[in-house]
Amino acid sequence: MELWFSEYQSKNVKFSLRIKNMLYSIKTPYQSLSVFENEDMGMVMTLDDVVQLTTKDEFIYHEMISHVPLFTHKSPKKVLVIGGGDGGTVREILKHPVKEVHLVEIDEQVVEASKKFFPTLSSGFSDPRTKIFFEDGIEFVKMNAGYDVIIIDSTDPLGPAVGLFSKDFYENVFNALNEDGIMVAQTESPFFYGEFLKRVSSDISSLFKYTSIYTAVIPTYPGAYWTFTLGSKTIEPASIDFEAIPGIDTKYYSREIHKGCFALPPFVKKAISN
Amino acid sequence: MELWFSEYQSKNVKFSLRIKNMLYSIKTPYQSLSVFENEDMGMVMTLDDVVQLTTKDEFIYHEMISHVPLFTHKSPKKVLVIGGGDGGTVREILKHPVKEVHLVEIDEQVVEASKKFFPTLSSGFSDPRTKIFFEDGIEFVKMNAGYDVIIIDSTDPLGPAVGLFSKDFYENVFNALNEDGIMVAQTESPFFYGEFLKRVSSDISSLFKYTSIYTAVIPTYPGAYWTFTLGSKTIEPASIDFEAIPGIDTKYYSREIHKGCFALPPFVKKAISN
Repeated sequence: MELWFSEYQSKNVKFSLRIKNMLYSIKTPYQSLSVFENEDMGMVMTLDDVVQLTTKDEFIYHEMISHVPLFTHKSPKKVLVIGGGDGGTVREILKHPVKEVHLVEIDEQVVEASKKFFPTLSSGFSDPRTKIFFEDGIEFVKMNAGYDVIIIDSTDPLGPAVGLFSKDFYENVFNALNEDGIMVAQTESPFFYGEFLKRVSSDISSLFKYTSIYTAVIPTYPGAYWTFTLGSKTIEPASIDFEAIPGIDTKYYSREIHKGCFALPPFVKKAISN
Repeated sequence: MELWFSEYQSKNVKFSLRIKNMLYSIKTPYQSLSVFENEDMGMVMTLDDVVQLTTKDEFIYHEMISHVPLFTHKSPKKVLVIGGGDGGTVREILKHPVKEVHLVEIDEQVVEASKKFFPTLSSGFSDPRTKIFFEDGIEFVKMNAGYDVIIIDSTDPLGPAVGLFSKDFYENVFNALNEDGIMVAQTESPFFYGEFLKRVSSDISSLFKYTSIYTAVIPTYPGAYWTFTLGSKTIEPASIDFEAIPGIDTKYYSREIHKGCFALPPFVKKAISN
């Protein structure tokens, strides 16, 4: 029997992966979660029928959401990840000499599935520097502070994650950061979410002294061309000493990629301008 | 009735577009050609059931395959495009003060379909500087010379286009170029064609003094992360004066994007290294 997973990236665009092995499919209290294997993309995790990661290309997203803010900060010691229960972002953060990584994931089943099926992503969960909280990130940032970097590694701005893209939330993130703190959020494709990107970057720039949008290509995400929005309290992201960035074991990130990733094409600049 | 076009990007990965209007579907002497409309991606042209362009994202491919080599060259006057019968590359070239653009397209029906359904792409065909040859590009470069820039705007390295990726062909391209000439070829996704990219860049670098691979994101192409390989006889692509690049009416290309597009991620460097 031929089995396919299909994601409707919109009503009119569909992306399908042939299922070599269907490994896991559950309903958690928050969402449906599936794990399967595809011959070309490797192991795949979906939440509510949206691809979250494939082992073939996950390194791009996880490296770019982590190393850009961490190397922009002079010496991050305490880092918070909101969402990101698969562990890929934690794995990348632990390549830095940080002291503590807090992961706040609302859905414990995501972490469990990653431990079971994605050992290369969840490897950092057993590191003594990592602490996992199964809580709502929105509430967590109201009650906790002292972070150098906060990474918002959320699902799309629909359903449970919608509050992670609100101005109130960003204000609480701002307050949970130290004086030279930096936040970054994944902020979708500029092809299909131009208006959204404009609103989010405007909200972040109303709070932070510096706001920078940067891009990377994520083949299995809708539109493939992905944005991240960084807010920084005191450090100007474009003016750091790129030559001073130390070598790091990565597959996509490099200091040259870092330097170039803030160059926005005219169509993106136009989408976010007033 | 619900109609969908599906492209098997591999045996295990499928990309589908809902057909709003099916406009054209013919067998030419060389390939099957279809034109349809999709609500999100606009007008779509396929050849042998592979998406060639959508009016939503074609600007990225056409701007990047044209402006990078043309601005690398000091003052291109005579430019040759091999393939590219849709006209998008010619449209971009004509934004430069060139004297002649020659388009060599083996399949006249591609040009005719573009004239009929893609006026925003085929607009340059009526420019007095444009001359179209319905010939085989492989033979054409053996018989013609005097070009400043040659752009190989081909389909995938399968079927009729396979000869456009051979070392013999690149040698003829080299000979058809002036002394400071530059060639560029679209060279597929490094995700799925790493070995291919290695072979092609090795062939080009055995002929040209400078070989540079650069990247762009093409959402509707398999793997989305796309490479172009540039060969240059005397001008070093990385050392041009980027600040001297004049403003140009584009949606993706800019001098900052140009400067950053040569930064290759470690995984691409690894794929092409020996």
